[in-house]
Amino acid sequence: MIHEECGVFGIWQAKSGPVAQMAYTGLFALQHRGQEAAGIALSDRGVFRHHKDVGLVSEVFAKDELDRLGEGNIAVGHVRYSTSGNPGRSNAQPIVVRHGKGNMAVCHNGNLVNSTLLREKLEQKGCIFHTTSDTEVISYLLTQERLESGSIEEALERVMDRIDGAYSLVVMSPTKLLAARDPRGFRPLCIGHLPNGGFAAASESCALDAVGARLERELEPGEIVVVSREGVSSIRSHCLQSTRALCVFEYIYFARPDSVIEGCTVHDARRCAGKLLAAAHPVDADVIIGVPDSGLDAAIGFSAASGIPYDVGLVKNKYVGRTFIAPSQELREQMVRNKLNPIRRVIEGKRVVLLDDSIVRGTTIAQLIHIIRETGAKEVHVRISAPPFLHPCYYGTDIDSEENLIAARHSVEETAAFIGADTLGYLSVEDAKKIPGQMGCGLCTACFDGCYPTQVPRDAGKNRFEQPLF
Amino acid sequence: MIHEECGVFGIWQAKSGPVAQMAYTGLFALQHRGQEAAGIALSDRGVFRHHKDVGLVSEVFAKDELDRLGEGNIAVGHVRYSTSGNPGRSNAQPIVVRHGKGNMAVCHNGNLVNSTLLREKLEQKGCIFHTTSDTEVISYLLTQERLESGSIEEALERVMDRIDGAYSLVVMSPTKLLAARDPRGFRPLCIGHLPNGGFAAASESCALDAVGARLERELEPGEIVVVSREGVSSIRSHCLQSTRALCVFEYIYFARPDSVIEGCTVHDARRCAGKLLAAAHPVDADVIIGVPDSGLDAAIGFSAASGIPYDVGLVKNKYVGRTFIAPSQELREQMVRNKLNPIRRVIEGKRVVLLDDSIVRGTTIAQLIHIIRETGAKEVHVRISAPPFLHPCYYGTDIDSEENLIAARHSVEETAAFIGADTLGYLSVEDAKKIPGQMGCGLCTACFDGCYPTQVPRDAGKNRFEQPLF
Amino acid sequence: MIHEECGVFGIWQAKSGPVAQMAYTGLFALQHRGQEAAGIALSDRGVFRHHKDVGLVSEVFAKDELDRLGEGNIAVGHVRYSTSGNPGRSNAQPIVVRHGKGNMAVCHNGNLVNSTLLREKLEQKGCIFHTTSDTEVISYLLTQERLESGSIEEALERVMDRIDGAYSLVVMSPTKLLAARDPRGFRPLCIGHLPNGGFAAASESCALDAVGARLERELEPGEIVVVSREGVSSIRSHCLQSTRALCVFEYIYFARPDSVIEGCTVHDARRCAGKLLAAAHPVDADVIIGVPDSGLDAAIGFSAASGIPYDVGLVKNKYVGRTFIAPSQELREQMVRNKLNPIRRVIEGKRVVLLDDSIVRGTTIAQLIHIIRETGAKEVHVRISAPPFLHPCYYGTDIDSEENLIAARHSVEETAAFIGADTLGYLSVEDAKKIPGQMGCGLCTACFDGCYPTQVPRDAGKNRFEQPLF
Amino acid sequence: MIHEECGVFGIWQAKSGPVAQMAYTGLFALQHRGQEAAGIALSDRGVFRHHKDVGLVSEVFAKDELDRLGEGNIAVGHVRYSTSGNPGRSNAQPIVVRHGKGNMAVCHNGNLVNSTLLREKLEQKGCIFHTTSDTEVISYLLTQERLESGSIEEALERVMDRIDGAYSLVVMSPTKLLAARDPRGFRPLCIGHLPNGGFAAASESCALDAVGARLERELEPGEIVVVSREGVSSIRSHCLQSTRALCVFEYIYFARPDSVIEGCTVHDARRCAGKLLAAAHPVDADVIIGVPDSGLDAAIGFSAASGIPYDVGLVKNKYVGRTFIAPSQELREQMVRNKLNPIRRVIEGKRVVLLDDSIVRGTTIAQLIHIIRETGAKEVHVRISAPPFLHPCYYGTDIDSEENLIAARHSVEETAAFIGADTLGYLSVEDAKKIPGQMGCGLCTACFDGCYPTQVPRDAGKNRFEQPLF
Repeated sequence: MIHEECGVFGIWQAKSGPVAQMAYTGLFALQHRGQEAAGIALSDRGVFRHHKDVGLVSEVFAKDELDRLGEGNIAVGHVRYSTSGNPGRSNAQPIVVRHGKGNMAVCHNGNLVNSTLLREKLEQKGCIFHTTSDTEVISYLLTQERLESGSIEEALERVMDRIDGAYSLVVMSPTKLLAARDPRGFRPLCIGHLPNGGFAAASESCALDAVGARLERELEPGEIVVVSREGVSSIRSHCLQSTRALCVFEYIYFARPDSVIEGCTVHDARRCAGKLLAAAHPVDADVIIGVPDSGLDAAIGFSAASGIPYDVGLVKNKYVGRTFIAPSQELREQMVRNKLNPIRRVIEGKRVVLLDDSIVRGTTIAQLIHIIRETGAKEVHVRISAPPFLHPCYYGTDIDSEENLIAARHSVEETAAFIGADTLGYLSVEDAKKIPGQMGCGLCTACFDGCYPTQVPRDAGKNRFEQPLF
Repeated sequence: MIHEECGVFGIWQAKSGPVAQMAYTGLFALQHRGQEAAGIALSDRGVFRHHKDVGLVSEVFAKDELDRLGEGNIAVGHVRYSTSGNPGRSNAQPIVVRHGKGNMAVCHNGNLVNSTLLREKLEQKGCIFHTTSDTEVISYLLTQERLESGSIEEALERVMDRIDGAYSLVVMSPTKLLAARDPRGFRPLCIGHLPNGGFAAASESCALDAVGARLERELEPGEIVVVSREGVSSIRSHCLQSTRALCVFEYIYFARPDSVIEGCTVHDARRCAGKLLAAAHPVDADVIIGVPDSGLDAAIGFSAASGIPYDVGLVKNKYVGRTFIAPSQELREQMVRNKLNPIRRVIEGKRVVLLDDSIVRGTTIAQLIHIIRETGAKEVHVRISAPPFLHPCYYGTDIDSEENLIAARHSVEETAAFIGADTLGYLSVEDAKKIPGQMGCGLCTACFDGCYPTQVPRDAGKNRFEQPLF
Repeated sequence: MIHEECGVFGIWQAKSGPVAQMAYTGLFALQHRGQEAAGIALSDRGVFRHHKDVGLVSEVFAKDELDRLGEGNIAVGHVRYSTSGNPGRSNAQPIVVRHGKGNMAVCHNGNLVNSTLLREKLEQKGCIFHTTSDTEVISYLLTQERLESGSIEEALERVMDRIDGAYSLVVMSPTKLLAARDPRGFRPLCIGHLPNGGFAAASESCALDAVGARLERELEPGEIVVVSREGVSSIRSHCLQSTRALCVFEYIYFARPDSVIEGCTVHDARRCAGKLLAAAHPVDADVIIGVPDSGLDAAIGFSAASGIPYDVGLVKNKYVGRTFIAPSQELREQMVRNKLNPIRRVIEGKRVVLLDDSIVRGTTIAQLIHIIRETGAKEVHVRISAPPFLHPCYYGTDIDSEENLIAARHSVEETAAFIGADTLGYLSVEDAKKIPGQMGCGLCTACFDGCYPTQVPRDAGKNRFEQPLF
Repeated sequence: MIHEECGVFGIWQAKSGPVAQMAYTGLFALQHRGQEAAGIALSDRGVFRHHKDVGLVSEVFAKDELDRLGEGNIAVGHVRYSTSGNPGRSNAQPIVVRHGKGNMAVCHNGNLVNSTLLREKLEQKGCIFHTTSDTEVISYLLTQERLESGSIEEALERVMDRIDGAYSLVVMSPTKLLAARDPRGFRPLCIGHLPNGGFAAASESCALDAVGARLERELEPGEIVVVSREGVSSIRSHCLQSTRALCVFEYIYFARPDSVIEGCTVHDARRCAGKLLAAAHPVDADVIIGVPDSGLDAAIGFSAASGIPYDVGLVKNKYVGRTFIAPSQELREQMVRNKLNPIRRVIEGKRVVLLDDSIVRGTTIAQLIHIIRETGAKEVHVRISAPPFLHPCYYGTDIDSEENLIAARHSVEETAAFIGADTLGYLSVEDAKKIPGQMGCGLCTACFDGCYPTQVPRDAGKNRFEQPLF
């Protein structure tokens, strides 16, 4: 499964109140964007308190941790999925900076492409790093620019001149909440207003819903939004610099179906993908079933377009989590079945269309197809609501290196044979660009077509922190 | 929400092997039947080891606990939901009895109606109880009958002469696995065979699937199945004594949709309930949406019968669990939204049919309807895939006392007004009896119509252990 | 090291108050008598609440557990050390019995010699056991006698007719606190009064000190003390039945030096042992050092009698606990040193007398002597403030089987050679009987001389629960 | 009670091995120097792994954490007591710096007096701080000097030009272990060699003993020792710059009695303090008792000098730890008794000399004296083996501000009256300087006489991180 790296959340209100609880609720709605670590930092009239640790939001924040954070008028929070083999506690966010010029807390979703270079320069100037994350690089730059700048937003503008890649940021100073999105808009970021006159920023609109905020708009690529006692202001000096490049996989898999991104509801985009798939790869079949959870929306769209009845064919055990113990060797083949069990009555004797959102190595779907056949399906036709993965991603997801991507080494026919499908149809890159409707341009599809909107990082594929030093 | 009390699992194989791991996997598939406690007992050539505690299966059994249980050739396991205000560790099952006549482990799903009487008699004979559960009563009776009996199965027959009510049992002796179902068959219990020649028994067939066993058949009401080196035998002395009375709510809500009960797939029964609802309470609407997870199957059936398009209108946050912290007062109205968020594009401007499985107090669905209307629905028509709850259950579920059941105090029209629905339609009791298809008779519908298949317990509604003594 | 099995504590007061906190404090003072499990049961006007688990008192009872127990007017508590390979949670005490005749909580220190027989009889009557402890046998008997008796104290009298061996009991009924000591008085048990008019019973007087109670007196062997609203009464029907046989090792090692047992302060008994040793085994030396902690008192006595200066020669790391990780093989020889480190200046170039309380296998003291010699001692003369262990104990301590007792297989000279001592002197059995001063008779010295005050248990040395059961 | 801030440990060996286990064992022996947090960093041929957290050494390092650290050839470790209200995890050490010039791990015992100034300068250069500890300041300076230096030891020399105050450091680079001590030698630091040819450095020699290392010598004030494949070298550029100023309280209280500091065994220094006290404040009494644990050594010395018999009069509950729950209000006066219980037989009717190591606020000793009188002492004469605390400490201990020091506001007679002592005698500052024998000069006694060996820090007494920041 492909993983997103992070989700960010921020809240500002004029009076002190339960902003930590609000951030908790917002992060809880963003939990699907990162399950490895969570954190919240709060400003209580300029005094910062924070807590972060590895674990789910509900694990990191027990009742007493929220109580300890107490009330405040600004809070920022983060959920993290770690791709780089450093899942430890020290990489959890927000990064809280104590500094004479004013404390600061930084949350970041995305990956910079020039972070190695920036890091080396900072190290040569005598900076020391406690983490391996890009967020610490950004924190350093922001601190250093702040020394020269009249305000933190001015400093952030200067930082954005220096960093390149994907970033959706929320930053808290003792008195302000800042939100910023990179000039290509790789990752989503939106802002809403609260009934009490406050404001919230979040990676996805579902987090605004969760805290009772009303989605006002999404940040433009390159925009900085500043919320303070002076109200909300916008800095657009980095807007319209670059071509838009929203990650199309946000629609296909990462985001929650109830979120709205660039004006398009994710559920609609997935239904649309299903419709386009039905048109591109028609099939004569008895039932269309989706792989829970992300395949369900597209399956409904496929059904509507093709007339093939939609049904629930696979039941997901909702208690599957990180702590489930892998069965012993003897039971290994039962692994997939512990998560997904077929309903015989829906499948037996049928020609089945199976809709999933992606194929990475192909092993999981192969086992699933094997189970569906064992359950009595006469035919299994696989439709994938994304194009084949062919290239790595440098913008904050963990799409594997090419040698592990089945599509990078095999034709569609070979893949179909490997996974045991009667037919296999992917969404085309062209169709993928159409799924959010009106905004058919401006998507990043680099993992499918290799057209990277930025320079590829110098040290792509290497992780120098894992190497012995000297 | 209504809760089931328990799920049971047992496994027997000729040679020593990872039966604890198998029981773990089986219980994991039964987790929806009880989330408060879990336990496994294992027989390693007659030596018993066991572990049980409060928590989910994956919490109670970390890797080292399974390792400590080690290998064996028989295992029994249990998941528990506690209804009686005694959620503590001491009520976790299996109950493991150390006794000169041979050790024994007992797992039970259901509630006896004469347990208070039996308990008093046992106490008058000098027995002491460590728990408040019926299972300990059964364990005592089984121990005492065993002293007089040639075999444990003979003892179990005698015990079944004395106990009345709902029980699906799995019992482990040092050499045998027993499974037994009460003469009315209130709770499901099935048996399957393993590829290695062994056998497994489980509350639901989805647990057999999970361990790679093939469903052989369900136990008949009143049947005892004995598995040992001598093979599988069946004792039917208590069969055909009573009218069948399978809990219809197993189909409507408790069981997993992929399980087969009395020959009927639960998913099919739910689709059928949706079809019957569509016929009984037709409505002119634009979209039919189900309340996840249990309302989805019936919604698909309703759509197929009515022609109203099915869509996903509510997104469930899959990370909601027991540890989620209730928001502060200010955020209380957001509570439902943290679990279920509407998709505006599916709902806005539409006449919506909302399908749920039951209404207890009516407060949750009222909040949900409020949210759906706020999201822009023009009309909200509620359809419930069960009849109204009017009476308490004495057979192992926690259906509330009548004063808390909205339907017991209000007409359908009043309820509709209270919850804010334009129209409200319940499944009729007659239709409820039809949902499993061919076996249209033999269901317990006492919570709907008050026709109790047994005598009502003498102390119904009281819990003497909560009272001060002397 | 030899371990005691248990400590017991009970408290009664007229008005409801923090009796759980008092029991906690009392058990904390008795922690040295058992570190494996702890538990408290409380009666709040007849409603029982209890909590018990494996761990130290401070681990089992976090703040919220004490809060959950709440206030009450009676409480009993227990600390446990398990000798029999069943350290699990199920053997923790108190045993709380729920019964129509009245609830009850039982705490026990000691071992019965006829428990196997009693247990078999109970099992033949259909009783089931959840634990392997003698306490459950006593609980059963007490329950059964209670059915026939006018009062719980009458029932306890009858139980004392049937049980044989070592037992100091505290029992709580909904309205009474009972304390009872076996007719030989193997284990200590005392009673004191509280400033608020209440009473407390405890294994040792140090627990009375800890809760601010004033030691009133020790229970006579065979006595039952009953505390209730009617005041304090005493039942002496089992007194003077048998010869007194207080375990002499309570003085030598088990009890805290500040406790008073049978009128003699433990510290005094230990100083006396040191004096008697100095007289029996004189030596020409430069310094006398004790092995912390229990050897220190005797060393001071030895110094006073011999004129050899007392000094601190070994420093104990006070953070050593159960969780300390055994060093890797390479560091194994450092093990003893992690607990006890010599002070070179005290030892180097000196003729050292080393005073310890006992030798079991001899391996630890051998390592210690090796370290002391390495540190530069010219001579090491070992004096042991107990006689050599030659026989197993059946009364509640874990003195090993004879094949593991170095003294049972070797002469004093051989032992001295094995452990590397220049000379080795034990306290004689005659002298051991003199250490508590005035009460020079009435001590159990069976582990030294084999003169068992009771019949030896039929199944001595076997643990049938570890055997496979068919 | 006065607390030390930290203990440090380092180990280097040529071949890969269990250095993490060795560091664990060494830190375990230094646990008395800090109980709030612990950490170990290891270099496995240049690859760094580390783990640190709040808690005791045995809590922070469970078996699997040590396993995860694995083998290596260098390790450094730290135990921490936090004085500044920031006990959190982020201040745990070692501080591990990832840097292109080479990774580094830094452990520090002591307090700088110019850290605020240094920190401000660093922040003005754009440095960001994650912690509030001086160690991070040192880590920054070391990193920055390293950019300009030929070697890490050269960088450390330069850092020592810039920092002022108390510091004993151990630093690990990928290939070297460095140990350094400030030019006044406030805190101890020693080095020893291992049987395998390796070397260990530690705050106290007892940690060398624990790992089987032989104390070679203590570092000179101002010395840097470098251990690498090239062997052991010493840099003395900062030696003899300043007057020696070893903290005298290391002898009186902080260090373990078995440690050797500046050639003097701590136990000897304490005995010496007792002897000097006996001479300065003679008394006619029946028994001398020490307050465990640190008063015992001095009490033995007092006894030897005065002829008054030494005995054990107070028994310490060795299970008292951080998790012990403070008793309810009603039991508050029992608090001291839960830790220290008097032995009546030793005290009753006697004129008692009570020896303790220090008086801070006077409340604890007042309660203790009250208890001793209640136990029947005829007179209580208090002797303190340190001079009165009159001034705060800026060198790494948490001696309170003057308003809380009883001696700063009251005469000796007033203090005696307040605590309820018949007489009270302190060690004089002149005598305190004599306790380590031969090295009667070169001790820091600032907390007693206000003669600070360095400039007093500019912001003494303030903690700017607790202030709101705008």
